[in-house]
Amino acid sequence: MSTVVSPPQQLSSQYRGVREFTQRITASLTPEDCMVQSMDDASPVRWHLAHTTWFFETFILRSDPQYEEYHEQFRYLFNSYYNSVGEQFPRPRRGTQSRPGLDEIWRYRRYVDEALLERMQQPEFVERHRDTLVVGLNHEQQHQELILTDIKHAFATNPLLPSFEARPFAPAAPASGRWHRFGETHGQVGHPGRTFCYDNELPRHRVLLPEFGIAADLVTCGEYRRFMQDDGYRRPELWLSMGWDTVQRQGWDAPLYWRHRDDRWQMFTLAGLVPVEDDWPVCHISYFEADAYARWAGKRLPTEFEWEYACCRLAAEDEEDRTESQGQFADDLVRQGHALHPTQAAGDMCGTLWQWTASAYHAYPGYRPPPGAIGEYNGKFMCNQYVLRGGSVASSRGHLRPSYRNFFPPDARWQFSGIRLAE
Amino acid sequence: MSTVVSPPQQLSSQYRGVREFTQRITASLTPEDCMVQSMDDASPVRWHLAHTTWFFETFILRSDPQYEEYHEQFRYLFNSYYNSVGEQFPRPRRGTQSRPGLDEIWRYRRYVDEALLERMQQPEFVERHRDTLVVGLNHEQQHQELILTDIKHAFATNPLLPSFEARPFAPAAPASGRWHRFGETHGQVGHPGRTFCYDNELPRHRVLLPEFGIAADLVTCGEYRRFMQDDGYRRPELWLSMGWDTVQRQGWDAPLYWRHRDDRWQMFTLAGLVPVEDDWPVCHISYFEADAYARWAGKRLPTEFEWEYACCRLAAEDEEDRTESQGQFADDLVRQGHALHPTQAAGDMCGTLWQWTASAYHAYPGYRPPPGAIGEYNGKFMCNQYVLRGGSVASSRGHLRPSYRNFFPPDARWQFSGIRLAE
Amino acid sequence: MSTVVSPPQQLSSQYRGVREFTQRITASLTPEDCMVQSMDDASPVRWHLAHTTWFFETFILRSDPQYEEYHEQFRYLFNSYYNSVGEQFPRPRRGTQSRPGLDEIWRYRRYVDEALLERMQQPEFVERHRDTLVVGLNHEQQHQELILTDIKHAFATNPLLPSFEARPFAPAAPASGRWHRFGETHGQVGHPGRTFCYDNELPRHRVLLPEFGIAADLVTCGEYRRFMQDDGYRRPELWLSMGWDTVQRQGWDAPLYWRHRDDRWQMFTLAGLVPVEDDWPVCHISYFEADAYARWAGKRLPTEFEWEYACCRLAAEDEEDRTESQGQFADDLVRQGHALHPTQAAGDMCGTLWQWTASAYHAYPGYRPPPGAIGEYNGKFMCNQYVLRGGSVASSRGHLRPSYRNFFPPDARWQFSGIRLAE
Amino acid sequence: MSTVVSPPQQLSSQYRGVREFTQRITASLTPEDCMVQSMDDASPVRWHLAHTTWFFETFILRSDPQYEEYHEQFRYLFNSYYNSVGEQFPRPRRGTQSRPGLDEIWRYRRYVDEALLERMQQPEFVERHRDTLVVGLNHEQQHQELILTDIKHAFATNPLLPSFEARPFAPAAPASGRWHRFGETHGQVGHPGRTFCYDNELPRHRVLLPEFGIAADLVTCGEYRRFMQDDGYRRPELWLSMGWDTVQRQGWDAPLYWRHRDDRWQMFTLAGLVPVEDDWPVCHISYFEADAYARWAGKRLPTEFEWEYACCRLAAEDEEDRTESQGQFADDLVRQGHALHPTQAAGDMCGTLWQWTASAYHAYPGYRPPPGAIGEYNGKFMCNQYVLRGGSVASSRGHLRPSYRNFFPPDARWQFSGIRLAE
Repeated sequence: MSTVVSPPQQLSSQYRGVREFTQRITASLTPEDCMVQSMDDASPVRWHLAHTTWFFETFILRSDPQYEEYHEQFRYLFNSYYNSVGEQFPRPRRGTQSRPGLDEIWRYRRYVDEALLERMQQPEFVERHRDTLVVGLNHEQQHQELILTDIKHAFATNPLLPSFEARPFAPAAPASGRWHRFGETHGQVGHPGRTFCYDNELPRHRVLLPEFGIAADLVTCGEYRRFMQDDGYRRPELWLSMGWDTVQRQGWDAPLYWRHRDDRWQMFTLAGLVPVEDDWPVCHISYFEADAYARWAGKRLPTEFEWEYACCRLAAEDEEDRTESQGQFADDLVRQGHALHPTQAAGDMCGTLWQWTASAYHAYPGYRPPPGAIGEYNGKFMCNQYVLRGGSVASSRGHLRPSYRNFFPPDARWQFSGIRLAE
Repeated sequence: MSTVVSPPQQLSSQYRGVREFTQRITASLTPEDCMVQSMDDASPVRWHLAHTTWFFETFILRSDPQYEEYHEQFRYLFNSYYNSVGEQFPRPRRGTQSRPGLDEIWRYRRYVDEALLERMQQPEFVERHRDTLVVGLNHEQQHQELILTDIKHAFATNPLLPSFEARPFAPAAPASGRWHRFGETHGQVGHPGRTFCYDNELPRHRVLLPEFGIAADLVTCGEYRRFMQDDGYRRPELWLSMGWDTVQRQGWDAPLYWRHRDDRWQMFTLAGLVPVEDDWPVCHISYFEADAYARWAGKRLPTEFEWEYACCRLAAEDEEDRTESQGQFADDLVRQGHALHPTQAAGDMCGTLWQWTASAYHAYPGYRPPPGAIGEYNGKFMCNQYVLRGGSVASSRGHLRPSYRNFFPPDARWQFSGIRLAE
Repeated sequence: MSTVVSPPQQLSSQYRGVREFTQRITASLTPEDCMVQSMDDASPVRWHLAHTTWFFETFILRSDPQYEEYHEQFRYLFNSYYNSVGEQFPRPRRGTQSRPGLDEIWRYRRYVDEALLERMQQPEFVERHRDTLVVGLNHEQQHQELILTDIKHAFATNPLLPSFEARPFAPAAPASGRWHRFGETHGQVGHPGRTFCYDNELPRHRVLLPEFGIAADLVTCGEYRRFMQDDGYRRPELWLSMGWDTVQRQGWDAPLYWRHRDDRWQMFTLAGLVPVEDDWPVCHISYFEADAYARWAGKRLPTEFEWEYACCRLAAEDEEDRTESQGQFADDLVRQGHALHPTQAAGDMCGTLWQWTASAYHAYPGYRPPPGAIGEYNGKFMCNQYVLRGGSVASSRGHLRPSYRNFFPPDARWQFSGIRLAE
Repeated sequence: MSTVVSPPQQLSSQYRGVREFTQRITASLTPEDCMVQSMDDASPVRWHLAHTTWFFETFILRSDPQYEEYHEQFRYLFNSYYNSVGEQFPRPRRGTQSRPGLDEIWRYRRYVDEALLERMQQPEFVERHRDTLVVGLNHEQQHQELILTDIKHAFATNPLLPSFEARPFAPAAPASGRWHRFGETHGQVGHPGRTFCYDNELPRHRVLLPEFGIAADLVTCGEYRRFMQDDGYRRPELWLSMGWDTVQRQGWDAPLYWRHRDDRWQMFTLAGLVPVEDDWPVCHISYFEADAYARWAGKRLPTEFEWEYACCRLAAEDEEDRTESQGQFADDLVRQGHALHPTQAAGDMCGTLWQWTASAYHAYPGYRPPPGAIGEYNGKFMCNQYVLRGGSVASSRGHLRPSYRNFFPPDARWQFSGIRLAE
C-alpha cells in the first residue's frame, strides 16, 4: 500500500480524529444495539469497535516488547480473518458474546489509544510504523461505514423498526438523463501514487478501452419501479443463472428494505420507514439485480476501468474538485441530518452510492500483496466477488477516489449500492 | 390444571415474591448478557423477562376491556409458541433484537405488575383468573430455571468464561451405593389433587408396576469417568442408534461443559471453571448418555412411574417431609452460594438434578388439555421427548413434587440433568 | 427371538420359498428400476436383494471356516447398520452404486443359496443355526415389503408414473361404523411363545388396561376428506407442535401420493394413478396426520396394548381364524391382482394397513436383546419412533400376528399406514 | 455463434459420425452404470444420451408442424436449464429416474435421428437450421466429454473401483522446464471467424498484453508432490480465502482421485487404480489448487488472453499444425488405448488437460447472446466461474482451438484440469 509522508503531529491528530469519529457515530446506540449480529455477513458494533482497536494493537503495539497487551484472549476474539496472526473466533457467533461488555471495550480503546499516542510522540516510532498506522486509520474508516450498514440491517430486522437518526430527508435533484461518451483509447488505471491507497489499486497500468458511453446519473427508484412493473423479478431471461436461483430461493421482488403496504412502496432507512421517492437513486441493490436491470434496459454495467477512466476525465473537466472539499467521514452531512441515505442529487460519480461494475475482482498485472499478515488484507478475497466503485454517503470522504476498489459477492445487498449504466 | 384455593391477599403476595425473585437472580447480568442467545434452544434473558410478563398480560389483562396494552407489537414479539394467540417472532432470531432494550422491558414488567396488582385487590377478579394466575406464577418459576440454564450455556460458549456467581462450592456427601427395592404392585400415579399441578400430571390413575429396584444415589462423576475410561464414548454397542449418530456428529467425549486440560478434567459451572470432583453427581447429561451409561453398568433407567412410586414411598417413610421446608425458588441455597451447581449430597430423589427416565413423554389415559390457548402449554409437545423427574438445584422449591413431569429431547444436555439407575 | 422347532427339510423348503418369492415380486423390474434410491430412507431394490443375502452369509456362512466368501467388499457394501460387523457404506449413497450389477447380485444370491442349502442337509448345521435361519427368513420377508414401499416411492417421484402391476382394483366393502368396547382389565401382552417372534415382542407380560373402545374399521378416504375440507391441514390446534412444523415445512395438504387435478383427488398406486374412492381405507398417513385426524374427530389413537388386547379378543371370537389361511407373502392376493394397495374390506385388524398407535417404541419390562450382532436388529432403534400394529396388504402373511411391533418415525408416510381410532 | 458453410451431405455425415461416436464411447456401460448420478454436478449417462437428443428435437424438429414429438414428458425431463423452453426436472434428482429405461432412450435417439436425417435430405431444411445443427453437434461433443468425466466420478465413488477401459498407459515424455516469453503487445483475441465457434468467443477484439512468460509444460505430478510435501495443503497463506475454507471443509490433501496407500500415492483413472507417475501432468485440480500451487511456486496463472495469444503464436511457429490432424473426438487415441487419461507428452497447449486461467468468465466487449432459447447456452453462466483453456484428452479433437473458452466454478475438480504457470 502506498502512503504520502506527513509530519508525526499531523498523523496523531488524524488518529484522534478518526477514533473520535467512530465514537460519535455510535453515540446513540445502546449496549444492546451494539450486540446485534443480524446475519453472518454483518458484525455487532461492539465487535467493530474492538476489532479496529485490535488492528492497531496487533500490527503496531505488539512489536514493542515494552507493550503489555490488554487481554491475551482479545488476540483471538477480535481477529477477523488473519491466519498469520492465529485462530479466529467463529464469525457467525460474534453476536453471542456479551463479554467483554461495551464499557470494557471502550476501556480497551482508550488503553490502546494512550499507548499508541504516547509512542507517536517519537518521530522514529512514527516513521517505522507510518504505513501500518495509515492503513489502520483507513481500515477504521471502512469499519465506520460497515457499522452503519450493519446497524441498518439489524434495525431493519427488528419489528419495532428503530431509527438511528431522527432528521428528515433533503430532497434529491432529479436525474438529467444525460450520457458521457468516450472514444477508443488507452487509459491509465490504478492509483497514481501521491497519496494513500490500498495494495489492490496497484500497480497503475495502461489498459485499452473500447469506445463507450456511461450514464451521467444513477438509476432512480422511479426507473427501477418500471423494471419491477414490467415483471423484472419474474422473467428468468433477464437474469444470470445464479441470479435467478437467488431470486427464487430468497423470494426477492424488490430492493432490500423495500416493503409494499397499503398499495404503496416504502423503504426502511436509518431514519425509519419513508415512502419511496421516484427521484432518488435506487439503493441496496445486488449485482444480480443491477445486471438484470441493465439487461432489461438494453444497456450493460460499466467495467471498472471504464468507470475509473470516466471518473478521472470528468473530475478533470470539473472546475470544482469535489475531493478537495471533503473533510472527515460524511461529517457535515451527518450533522445536517440529510446523509446516510440516498439523498444526494443523482449525477455524482462519487459519494452517493457504490456502483456495481461488470468486473470480477482480480489482481492487477504485477500485483503483489505486502509481506506479512497485512498481505491478507485484500488479496486473498480475489474470488467470486465483483468490484464496486465510487463510495457512498456512508463512506469516509477521504475514500472517494477514482481508483478505490470495493468488492462484494454478487448477492450482497446490505451495502449502500446502486446502479450506473453503460453502453 | 388443578389449583388449591388461597385468599386473594396471599396470591398477591406470592405474585410479588415470584416477580421479585426473577429480578434478584438477574441482578448481576449486564444488558449485553441479557441479549445473548447462544443456541436456538436457549433464549436471551431479556426475552424470558418479557415473555413471562407477556403471559400475564395476554392471558389475564387483555380480557379486561379497560386494560390498555403496553405495546401492540409485544403480542407478536414475546409470544413463544401459542398459535391461538397469533404469529410468533422466529425463535432462532430472538438474540438479534436489541429493542425493546432491557430498561424498556423492566418498564413493561412494572406496568403489567401495577395493572395486575391493582385489579387483584378485587376478590372477584382473583376468583375469575385464579387458575391462570397460578399457572402464570409457576410458568415464571420455570423460566427462572431456564434463565439459569441459558445464561450458563451463554457464558460457557464465551472464551472469557465469565462467572455468574462468585462463591465456592459446598462439598458433596459421597454416594452410599444403596438400592431401594419394591415388589410387584399396583401404584397410583399422577397428581393427587390438593395443590397446583400441570395438566400433564393428570388424570391420576392406577398402573401395574413390576418388581423393581432403584438406586438410592445419583450416578457420580467418578462412576461416569470409569465409563469414559472404559471407552464408553467409542463403543457403538452401548448406544441407541440415534445416540451413536449424535456422538459421532457432535464429537461428544464427555458431559457438556467438561474439558480436559493439562491431563485433568474440569467443568464449567455458574461459578466458573472448577475441577471435576469424583463424589459429585454427574450433570449435563443427555438421555442418550444416561441410557448408554446404564447399559454399560448392566442396569437401566427407571420408568417415570417406577420413579414416582419410589419417590412417594420414600417420602412417606421419611419423617422429615422435604417438600414442606421449601420456600422460594432455591432461595437459601442461592444466598449461601452453594447452589446452582451439583453440590448437594447424592441420594436425594428431588432437588439435586433432573433425572432422565426411560419413558417417552405421552398423555395419561383420559388426558385433556385445558380449553383455549393455555391448552398449548404442555400437550402439543408430547412427541419425541423423554420425561425427567425430580427437579434440580436450579428448580423452584415449590416444583419439587413426585408427580412433576419435565421433558426434553433425548440429545438435550444444557439442563441440570443427571442419572439414577434402576434394575 | 423365539422360534418353534420344525424338521430340517421343512426349513430348507421354507428357505427356498421365501427366496423365490423375492425373485417373483421383483421379476417385472428393469435393472434401472432396481438402482433407484428416491430418498435417504428408501433403498434400491438391488440393495435389498444383496443385503438379505448378506444377512445369511454374514451371520451363518461366515462362521464356517470352509466357506469362501463371495466378495470381500460385500461385507462393507451390504451391511445395513450392524456396527459389530464393521463399517457400513453410507446409506444415502446406496443409489449411486452401479456395481455389482443386477446380474452379479443374482449370482451372489445363487452362490449363497447353494452354499446354505447344501449345508442345511446336515441336521446338526440346521440345529446350530436354526434361530438365525428363521430370523433371516423373517428378515427377508420384511425386506419384501420394503421393496414394495420403496419402489412405489421411486415410481411416484418419476413424472412418467410407471406401473408396477397392471390389474384393476377389487372394490372395497364399506365401513360399518361399529365400535368394540372393553371394560377395565388386566391383559397379557407380548408374544405367547409357540412360534417365531422378534425379541422386541418379549417378554410377555401383564398390563393394566383402562376401559376403552376401538373402532371396528379403519378410517376411510371419505372420512379423511372431510377432515381436509374442514381445514385439517391449516389448523395448528389440531396438531402436535412437531407435526405442525412438518406440515408447514413440507407443504403437506393431503396424504402422500394424493394429487388434486381437474378438481378431483387421485392417488398414485402400484397400478398407477387412480381416483380416490371414499370407501377405501386412507393410506400413506404419518403418525402426525393420524394423531391430528383423531383429535379432529374427538377421538384418539389406541395404545399398542389396547390394540393387541382387542386383536386377540376379536380373533378368539372369530370362528374363522385368519392367521391359519395365510400362506406365502400376500401370495394369492398378488396373483389375483387385488393386493398391494388398500383394497380389502375395512374392518380387519390385520393385513390391510399398518395402524399407528399412540405408543412410543420402547423396551418391554425385562427386555434383553440377543447377544452378538443380531442384538442390533431391533433394540437400538427404541427412540423417537412410534409403534404400528396389524400388517398391511404388502406384509408377509406369516407376519400378521397380534404381538408384531412395527415402528417408524412420526413423519414417515411411505409405508402402507392408516388410522384406527380409539376412545 | 458462427459457422462455416458445408454441403448438406457433409453435415449429414458429420451428424451420423458424432451420434455414433456417442454410442461407441458408452458401449461398455451397463444399464446400471448409465443410471448413476454420483453428485449434483454430474449427470447420469442415460440423461446425457437423452438430453443431447432433446436438443435436436427441441430446437430443430419441433419447429416443423409435421413432426410428432416422441413423448410429451421428455420436453420437461430432458431440459437442462432452458427457461425459455419451460420447467426443468430438478437436476439433483436426475439419478432417481429409472424410466424411460436405457433401451427406450436408445429408441428415442433413433427416432430423432431418422426424423432429422430424412429432413436433412432437403437442402432448404439444412440451410434453415444449419446454425442450430452445428451447435447441436458441438453440444453433443461437449456431452461426450462430460460422459467421461461423470462416469469417472461415478466409478471412483464405488468401492469396487470399476474400470471403464482396460488398456495400459502410454508413457509420458518428461517436462522440458522451458518457458516462452513475449514482450508487451496488442493482441487480437476471440475467434477469427472462418469456422464454428460459440457466442462467448466473440466478438474478436484487441487487448493490450503486458510483457509475460508462460511455461512450455504443464505442471507435473512430481512437481505437485513437492508442493504437497512442503505442506501446501496446510498453509493458509498460500490460498485464497474461499479456497482455504474449501480445503478445510472438504478435507482436501491431494488432487481428486489420489489416494495414499501403503506409503505410496495412487490415482484412480478410467483404467482403474494406477501409481502416480512423477512425469505425468497433474490432473483433477481445482482453480483453488492451481492458484495455491502457483503462489507456492512464486509464479501465477496466465490470464485467458495471455494463454490465447501464446497459443496462437506458438501454433504459427509450429510447422506441423496440430489442429489439422484432428479427426473425430479423441478417436485414434481411444482406439490405441492411450487416451482418456493424462498421458500425452507435457508441453502441449491443447489436447492434454484443460488449464485454469486467472480470468473470471465474463462477456467480451460487445458480446450479444443469440436470440431465443439458444441465447441461454453460455451467457447466463458468466458469474463466479473461471475460464479454462486448451481442451483435454477427453475433448473432441475439433474443439481444440485457441479461442475456446471452457468455464467451471473454482472448486470443481472432476474435469480433466491441470496447471500451466505464467510469470
